Amino acid sequence: MKILVINAGSSSIKYQLLNMDTEEVLSMGLVERIGIEGSRIVHRVNGEKHIIEKEIQDHEVGLKYVLSLFTDSKYGVLKSLEEIDAVGHRVVHGGEKFASSVRINDDVLNTMEMLSFLAPLHNPANIMGIKAATELLPNVPHIGVFDTAFHQSMPEKSYLYAIPYEYYEKYKVRRYGFHGTSHRYVAQRTAEILGKDVKDLKIISCHIGNGASIAAIDGGKSVDTSMGFTPLEGLAMGTRSGDIDPAIVDFLIKEEGLTSKEVITILNKKSGMLGLTKKYSDMRDIEDNAIAGDKVCRTAFDIYEYKIAKYIGSYAASMNGVDAIVFTAGVGENSPIMREEIAENYLGYLGININKEKNNVRGKETIVSTEDSKIKLMVVPTNEELMIARDTKEIVEKNLDELKL
Amino acid sequence: MKILVINAGSSSIKYQLLNMDTEEVLSMGLVERIGIEGSRIVHRVNGEKHIIEKEIQDHEVGLKYVLSLFTDSKYGVLKSLEEIDAVGHRVVHGGEKFASSVRINDDVLNTMEMLSFLAPLHNPANIMGIKAATELLPNVPHIGVFDTAFHQSMPEKSYLYAIPYEYYEKYKVRRYGFHGTSHRYVAQRTAEILGKDVKDLKIISCHIGNGASIAAIDGGKSVDTSMGFTPLEGLAMGTRSGDIDPAIVDFLIKEEGLTSKEVITILNKKSGMLGLTKKYSDMRDIEDNAIAGDKVCRTAFDIYEYKIAKYIGSYAASMNGVDAIVFTAGVGENSPIMREEIAENYLGYLGININKEKNNVRGKETIVSTEDSKIKLMVVPTNEELMIARDTKEIVEKNLDELKL
Repeated sequence: MKILVINAGSSSIKYQLLNMDTEEVLSMGLVERIGIEGSRIVHRVNGEKHIIEKEIQDHEVGLKYVLSLFTDSKYGVLKSLEEIDAVGHRVVHGGEKFASSVRINDDVLNTMEMLSFLAPLHNPANIMGIKAATELLPNVPHIGVFDTAFHQSMPEKSYLYAIPYEYYEKYKVRRYGFHGTSHRYVAQRTAEILGKDVKDLKIISCHIGNGASIAAIDGGKSVDTSMGFTPLEGLAMGTRSGDIDPAIVDFLIKEEGLTSKEVITILNKKSGMLGLTKKYSDMRDIEDNAIAGDKVCRTAFDIYEYKIAKYIGSYAASMNGVDAIVFTAGVGENSPIMREEIAENYLGYLGININKEKNNVRGKETIVSTEDSKIKLMVVPTNEELMIARDTKEIVEKNLDELKL
Repeated sequence: MKILVINAGSSSIKYQLLNMDTEEVLSMGLVERIGIEGSRIVHRVNGEKHIIEKEIQDHEVGLKYVLSLFTDSKYGVLKSLEEIDAVGHRVVHGGEKFASSVRINDDVLNTMEMLSFLAPLHNPANIMGIKAATELLPNVPHIGVFDTAFHQSMPEKSYLYAIPYEYYEKYKVRRYGFHGTSHRYVAQRTAEILGKDVKDLKIISCHIGNGASIAAIDGGKSVDTSMGFTPLEGLAMGTRSGDIDPAIVDFLIKEEGLTSKEVITILNKKSGMLGLTKKYSDMRDIEDNAIAGDKVCRTAFDIYEYKIAKYIGSYAASMNGVDAIVFTAGVGENSPIMREEIAENYLGYLGININKEKNNVRGKETIVSTEDSKIKLMVVPTNEELMIARDTKEIVEKNLDELKL
C-alpha cells in the first residue's frame, strides 16, 4: 500500500510518499512560497535533492506538480498515480471533536472549518491542502490526522483552566495541546525499544524543536501537556515566550500602546530565545555562542533548559512517578549538551544518571542513561509522517474490511 | 522593645502591637471600611474582641483611634504611646530596589512611590499607612518590610521571562514573587523545628491561602516562586486564575468584546475556584461540597491540588532535590484532606509518606510525614507580623549600635 502524506501550511506543502508494506519513504519534499514570488519545490528522491524553481499560484497547482514528479521519467517512483492508495493529511486542530484520526468526508471538512476559530493560522491552510488533494486524487480515501487528538485523553484537572467556566461552555477555551502525533509516536517507540507494553509505562516525552512541548504519557495516554489553548503556552521556544504572567499582556498594551493582537504576535514571533538574545532564535546559534562564552546566550540557554527541567519535574508529580524521559525533535535529538545539563543540574534527585559517552549522539535512537539509572533517559527521533501514514493505512484497511462484511 | 506592625490596604489597616522582649502580641486588630459607610474597628486585647463602630474618614483618623485604644483606660496595654519604640510597615512591592527590609526616609518613600506602577493596587495604600503613622509617631523609626524582598535572590533563569529583553530593561518586567515575608518565616521555622541550619536545607514552602504561592528555598534563599510580575501568576486561587495560555487574554478581548484591563480583572476577581464553581471562592466551601459529593466542587478541588502538586514537582527539579515540603497559611494549615490527597496522589515517587493521624491537625506546627518518609512533610503556621516586627527590631538595634560607635 502506497500512501501520500501531506502537511499544508499557508504558503507551503510538505509531502512524503511512503510504501507502507515496508514503511520505506519513496520520495519527499517541500513546496515553498506558494503564491509568493520565488516559489519552488525541493524534491528528494533516491538520495538526491532537486530544486525546481517554478511559479506556483496556489496549493492545487503545487500539488499537481508534485504528483507529476512522482511519475516523471527522470524523478519518478510510480508508474501511475493510481498506485497511490490513500492520502494522510496533517491537521493542526481537532478541537474536542476528534480524539483520533478520521476519514475525511464533507461533514468532517465542515467541522474542521468550524474549528478554524481555534487555530486561525493553521486549520485554513490544512483545509486548502485537503481540498487540493481531494480535487487531484478524488478516488482514494483521505484521512485527517490531528495534532490535538492524542491529548484528548487528558483529564479535566489538566485541561480546564481556572477561569470562568462559561468560557469553556461558550468557546471551548481549554488546554488542547499540540505535537500529539509526535508524542504518540515517541511513546510507542519508547515502549518498543524498552521491550515493554506502553500500558505499563510512565513516559515524559520532550518534543524540543523550534516549537516545543512536553507531554506526560501514562499507560500510553496523554494526561497533560505544556502547550495549551494555543501553541504559545509552555516552554520558552525559538521565538515564543511560553508561560508568562497573563497580566503582562495588559501591562504591555498600556505601556507600549499596542493592541492585544500585537502583543500576542510579539509573544509568538519576537520572544523566546530571539527576545532574550535580541539576535538568535535557532538553538544551534544559542548553544554555540553559549559554549564560546557569550553571557547573553548562556543565560538564554539556561532559561531554555530550566523550563524544560521544571516541566519534567512537574509531570513526574502529575503521574506520581516516571519510567522514561525521552527527547525528540530538532533540539531534543541533536543537542547532547542540553540533555546532559538538564540531567546533571536538575534531575539527579529522580535517580537519573546520564552516560555522557552514550549521550554524545544525534538523531539516533539511544538509551543515554547509565545501566543503573533508576529512570531511563532516551533519544527517540520523531516521525510524524510515518505516524500519519500508519493511521491512514489502518483506517483504510479497517474500512475495506467493513466493506467486505 | 515594643513594636507596632501595620499592614495598610486601600480601605483597611491591620495592626499588631508586640512586646519584642518576649515576642508576645499585646494587642491586634483591623480597621475596616475606611472612608466607606459602616467603618469600624475590630480590636483584640487580653483574649477579648471589641467591635467599635465609628466614622473613619481616612487612614490617619483610623490609626489615631487605634493608638488611643492602646492607652485607653479600659482596653489599654500601654501607659503612654512613648513606649512604642518603632513601627514596622508591610509594603507589597519593593521592585529590584529592596532586597531586604529598610528604615524609611524620604528617599525610600519616593522610591516606593516610583514603584507604584508595578503594584498600583497595593503600594499606594501601603504608602498611605506609612504617611499616617509617621505623622502620628514622628519620633520613632519606621521600617519597611517588602513582600518581594525575599525573592530578590532568585537567579536570572527564574526571574527573566522569555519575552523581548527590552521590556525588562525599560519597565523591569520580570518575576518578582510575593508572600516573601511568609516564605522567609516558614523557611526559618522549618530549619529550627528540624534542628538544622537553613543553609543545609532544600525547602518547598507552600503558602496556600486565598492568595497562594509556592517558593523553592535552597540554603535559606528563594530560588524560584510561582507568583510572577503580579500576584496573578502561578497556582489556581480563590478568585485568581493563576497560569493560563497568554493567548486567552487576546481571545477573550476579541470574543467577549472586553478591554484588556477588564480581562485581567476577571482573571483576578472572577476566576480560580469562583470561576470554576460559579459559586464559591472559599476553599472551606469547596472542600465541604467536594466531600459531600458535589461533582463541580470535586473537580475544582482536584484542579487546586493538582496545580500545587505540579509546582512542588517542578521545584524539586529546580533545586535537584528537596528535604522538606511545608504547608502554611489559611488552607495550607487547615486542610488535612488537601495535604493528604496531594501527598498520596502525586508525591509518593519522591519517597514521601504521610502519617494520616499526625496530618489530622490544623494551624499547629507538626511534622505530618511518617518517621521513614524520605522527605519531611510539615505544617508550619506562618506569622508575617512577627517577621516584620523582628526585622524592625533588628534594624533599630543595628542603627542604635551605629549611633553609639
